[in-house]
Amino acid sequence: MKEFFCGIDLGGTKIDIGIVTREGKVIHNIKIPTEVENGPENAIKRMKETINVLLNKLDLSIEDLGGIGIGSPGPLDTKEGVILKTSNLTGWENTRIVDMLKEDFKNIPIRLENDANAATIGEYLFGSGKNHKDFVYITVSTGVGGGAIVNGHFQSGANSNAFEIGHTILNFNGPKCNCGNYGCIEAYASGTALERFAKEAIDSGEESLIKELAGEGKIKGEHIVGAAKEKDPLALKLIEDEGYYLGLSLYNVIANYNPEVIAIGGGLSNALNMFYDKMMETIKGMSLKANIEACQIKKAERSDCGLVGAAALSFYEY
Amino acid sequence: MKEFFCGIDLGGTKIDIGIVTREGKVIHNIKIPTEVENGPENAIKRMKETINVLLNKLDLSIEDLGGIGIGSPGPLDTKEGVILKTSNLTGWENTRIVDMLKEDFKNIPIRLENDANAATIGEYLFGSGKNHKDFVYITVSTGVGGGAIVNGHFQSGANSNAFEIGHTILNFNGPKCNCGNYGCIEAYASGTALERFAKEAIDSGEESLIKELAGEGKIKGEHIVGAAKEKDPLALKLIEDEGYYLGLSLYNVIANYNPEVIAIGGGLSNALNMFYDKMMETIKGMSLKANIEACQIKKAERSDCGLVGAAALSFYEY
Repeated sequence: MKEFFCGIDLGGTKIDIGIVTREGKVIHNIKIPTEVENGPENAIKRMKETINVLLNKLDLSIEDLGGIGIGSPGPLDTKEGVILKTSNLTGWENTRIVDMLKEDFKNIPIRLENDANAATIGEYLFGSGKNHKDFVYITVSTGVGGGAIVNGHFQSGANSNAFEIGHTILNFNGPKCNCGNYGCIEAYASGTALERFAKEAIDSGEESLIKELAGEGKIKGEHIVGAAKEKDPLALKLIEDEGYYLGLSLYNVIANYNPEVIAIGGGLSNALNMFYDKMMETIKGMSLKANIEACQIKKAERSDCGLVGAAALSFYEY
Repeated sequence: MKEFFCGIDLGGTKIDIGIVTREGKVIHNIKIPTEVENGPENAIKRMKETINVLLNKLDLSIEDLGGIGIGSPGPLDTKEGVILKTSNLTGWENTRIVDMLKEDFKNIPIRLENDANAATIGEYLFGSGKNHKDFVYITVSTGVGGGAIVNGHFQSGANSNAFEIGHTILNFNGPKCNCGNYGCIEAYASGTALERFAKEAIDSGEESLIKELAGEGKIKGEHIVGAAKEKDPLALKLIEDEGYYLGLSLYNVIANYNPEVIAIGGGLSNALNMFYDKMMETIKGMSLKANIEACQIKKAERSDCGLVGAAALSFYEY
């Protein structure tokens, strides 16, 4: 039984590539820039070189690997190993990434999976989901995504599109979402939504430190968090609202999935302590007592869950 | 391997008791009135008598049964076999139904499960969910409930409270639900909500045939459906809204569960053809094309799914 697996966590700005054990230990990893604008051929060429560098460094040959797994933004055709399109990999439409890797790495399994799904599997196997048969991972950054383990089995759905949590409706009379629908979780609780709420408030004339921190540029989550740390009233209100919207979102998740653990990852999870109280107050005020008592809600333990989850795609059966 | 199982579908007005095969065929069943007001001892005594009548009729002895399964309104303690409390079995709080049946039927397994869960299992094994690894059953009547099969496994959750779909939020600014929260699916799409919307419209002075059909009594779903068949404008509007709200609800279900089949049961499913078009238009307008193409949405095939699912509790592993 092979003990080493290669994980590739493909993102819009960087690609994290690592050799990982069956127990989720990262033996060695290298991050390279994605350089989206140079196209997929260029990036995949550098991925291959990086894998060879890692193998050489660890004195391993490709045959020592149990497989290569890639976590990528979607939508994907996971069966055919194709990146169909994605909002942050412009020009990468219809990239047959699995076939392209197979040109150099024959005879080992190569598997492609949605990045949020890979992160869910990583956090389930090697992080806060370990030994919990009902587990949910939520990533809150530009968008809101995630995945679920139900009764010990990864929830994939009829065509690998399960747990599109960011596009479930929280208020059908709510603001328009990028997806075209109204009042999705993503339109309320994502980093993008947080920035939009800030912009709307400032455009309507509210005074705030956020404006100074952003200067001439676009308002970003870090400006809001920064201003909140300085007790700026608008920033504090926005952070409280974020806690409320995330609380509503997780209430719905708990009512559907009744999980033992919900792990929160993604960029906004770094500010989790700022909106945790309001989020928990909201959830506790709404949920069945038994359900909230049965559920731990925490920051994801593995910041590299996307990488280790990608590596696990070769041996985790789902 | 035993071939016969006893199912008990316990409801607020009647109890359906049947002998069912492993393939979901009901060999014989008898319905008795619940007579809630006479208490659980009385009803359970009559359940036992009915089981003995069925056994005699089929020339079977209790040892020929692989088990007895009970589907009951909840909340329950399924491990201890206790009905904790339920809104339509007043006075039945803390009924140790499994122990009470065991007094007469020793040496065979007796299992208690939430009625919506039992119905989900019944429809999955023997109805429209057969051979579909991702399946959702929704019951729309007084309340909205159901259950899900995820990747071939029944979704139970950390403490058997998964798929509380009726109490997921569709609009956090919406009307107050019986559960205390605001804008739950149950507050929009249940039979109770439909009746409430009708009452509100009529109380505010709208003319409608619904009022005539209800007479001096309470407005019921059947009055609204009856008036809609006569093309009463208010009734048609209410039915269209029901389709819209159910469509929103199922959109969320599809985004979370990405199922191959959604089966709709419960009292309102008998009028499904009246709101089906609006419901489907809503879902199709919102869902990912691939997801809606992968999903059949239909009336539950087994009107007795609660009974056969209860019987299956003794051999279906989940």
